[in-house]
Amino acid sequence: MKDNRYMKRLEQCVSHMKETGLNALLLTKPSNMFYLTGDGRLCAYAMISQDGKVALGVPSTDVEDVTALAHFDHITGFEDEVGMIHSIAHHFEHFGIHDGTVGLEYTFLTQSMMGMLTHPHAKPESIAVKDCTHILSEMRMVKDPEEIERIRAAAKVADTGMKAAIEAVKADVTESQVAAAAEYAMRHAGAEEFWRTYVASGPRTNIAHGLPTNRTLQPGDLVMIDIHPVVNGYSADICRTVCVGKPAPEQQAAYDLYLEAQQATIARIKAGVGMVELEHTIHGILSEAGHGDHLFGPPIHGVGIEFEESPLPPGHAFFHGEKAPPPLPANVVIAVGNCGLYIGPWGVRVEDTNVVGVDGPETLTSYPRTLESA
Amino acid sequence: MKDNRYMKRLEQCVSHMKETGLNALLLTKPSNMFYLTGDGRLCAYAMISQDGKVALGVPSTDVEDVTALAHFDHITGFEDEVGMIHSIAHHFEHFGIHDGTVGLEYTFLTQSMMGMLTHPHAKPESIAVKDCTHILSEMRMVKDPEEIERIRAAAKVADTGMKAAIEAVKADVTESQVAAAAEYAMRHAGAEEFWRTYVASGPRTNIAHGLPTNRTLQPGDLVMIDIHPVVNGYSADICRTVCVGKPAPEQQAAYDLYLEAQQATIARIKAGVGMVELEHTIHGILSEAGHGDHLFGPPIHGVGIEFEESPLPPGHAFFHGEKAPPPLPANVVIAVGNCGLYIGPWGVRVEDTNVVGVDGPETLTSYPRTLESA
Repeated sequence: MKDNRYMKRLEQCVSHMKETGLNALLLTKPSNMFYLTGDGRLCAYAMISQDGKVALGVPSTDVEDVTALAHFDHITGFEDEVGMIHSIAHHFEHFGIHDGTVGLEYTFLTQSMMGMLTHPHAKPESIAVKDCTHILSEMRMVKDPEEIERIRAAAKVADTGMKAAIEAVKADVTESQVAAAAEYAMRHAGAEEFWRTYVASGPRTNIAHGLPTNRTLQPGDLVMIDIHPVVNGYSADICRTVCVGKPAPEQQAAYDLYLEAQQATIARIKAGVGMVELEHTIHGILSEAGHGDHLFGPPIHGVGIEFEESPLPPGHAFFHGEKAPPPLPANVVIAVGNCGLYIGPWGVRVEDTNVVGVDGPETLTSYPRTLESA
Repeated sequence: MKDNRYMKRLEQCVSHMKETGLNALLLTKPSNMFYLTGDGRLCAYAMISQDGKVALGVPSTDVEDVTALAHFDHITGFEDEVGMIHSIAHHFEHFGIHDGTVGLEYTFLTQSMMGMLTHPHAKPESIAVKDCTHILSEMRMVKDPEEIERIRAAAKVADTGMKAAIEAVKADVTESQVAAAAEYAMRHAGAEEFWRTYVASGPRTNIAHGLPTNRTLQPGDLVMIDIHPVVNGYSADICRTVCVGKPAPEQQAAYDLYLEAQQATIARIKAGVGMVELEHTIHGILSEAGHGDHLFGPPIHGVGIEFEESPLPPGHAFFHGEKAPPPLPANVVIAVGNCGLYIGPWGVRVEDTNVVGVDGPETLTSYPRTLESA
């Protein structure tokens, strides 16, 4: 069952492998396997040889399911970790790979998983290992039309989830219950899954990763809601901040400033723009207003199979095993507004998912950007 | 702000460090940090010295929040990855650690995170590194009374979630919508979060990790629901399999057999029992009935801050950086029934969370175990 799209991806992958001097890839990250083969799941691997052969190893229970989903036919089932190790050895042998270098995903594999995959019973000791993270990240950066349609569908579901969440915002409701409203609405609107839901309120809007707690919302609280549905395997990223009741003037002023910085950055998106230029735009407006010390995290990142993926700003890319991104080609999809403005007693953040178009941005998430919730 | 419980845990930790020959621990796994300090979050670390000093490094935005939650006072904020690396170097210097060995969590750290934490600007090159996974896993294995109360509360929420999920099961509903019902009910019953929700139906009940999809339930389908709320930082694990309408005789027979094996295994739980004995009980009954090849994954695992944690059966423990568990002391909490019985066209699984008592088991999850859903 070979689909042209997957054959083309395999060809690209093989071409990158040759450039990088890799004789094989041994992938275990579900999003990378999904992109390359049509199926990605936990406790599984895909081995790709430089002459374009593909083998999948999956739990024995899953062979039939993977056969229906994956676009390559060489699928092996294993019973446990020992079986997995032996099946990897079998594929090295079967593909005739006895030396050279195999690429592993250093940004996904834990140290102990590295130990399993490079165990002498799995990988011949004569084969060296090397990080291959950047290959799949670069391949996934520019989206084809079907991928953009899937992200567009996820963005619509994200808007629906945001509407439900904001409608749930009122005094005495918990952060967790606001998250419940968003997640329930997203699943009923067509999401098969979602990435982490963030809901943070009051002083918790000032933290970097506001996972929901049982804190109850108070009148005058800001509430930051950041959601990421998965629809047909693709995600979208939207964040809104709203107030429980009427915002204070200083809250409104911070929000207006942040929204201005975010929208000015989105306005600069078009094919050929650099990530650094976009990062400087949002940081620059906030810094000029005296808030250079009130930001945290990458303001811009890619969106696709994962809600945060390549391209990353160069500083973060380095620590995540990526190369600094090139000037953005058309059809890269990026979320803008992730850094937030953390004033101290509270913070604000507004984030939207955008396609890099030839002449400008197309913003896919569209839920209204207003601090007053009703 | 030093709580006796946390001082005791720190003393135990230091004692393990001395036994293992570790001069410091550098922890980044949120569950381990939560257990040891009272706060665990992403993008943060805890450094523990052999003389019992504790330092936390967190995003600069989060310092105030962590100060309110953690039971140790030495908290440093950083702005980005470079700042994190420099703050680690500062703590090595401040604690006077210039050589010896530092313990890292090899089962949690990705290869690229290992690179960050052992970067020459973070860790003095004269300090060696070694896996410390087993220290925190062993410490967390036996639960104190407050921990058991929290798991008990999570088990009640899990029962509530299962009731809502099973009430949502009917033809033409999607797996994702069944998951929505469970998650919404768990959050409204008091869960601040949940670990992965599994909902698999029809032929998908035959796979090892049945994350929900948009498949619509059909009359006669089996539906496998596996949920894990988090309440006050602690989890519980429950799985039920139900039929859409009336089950076929062979479905009922497989279910009855699996339930018999699961219940017989739970009946053997008491202080001093071995994990291998429990594993042999459930595997033995299923194998004698001719299903030795129809199982997958560890049938039994610990439950606590994580829904799957130590103790793991010895075979799995090895690959997860753990030692083989000792005979189980009282107040270990284990889930029984995780292996499932995968017949081919469909599978069944029933799983419950249990406290190891001095004289026998206490089963915390109690939702009725019946294949017919109504």
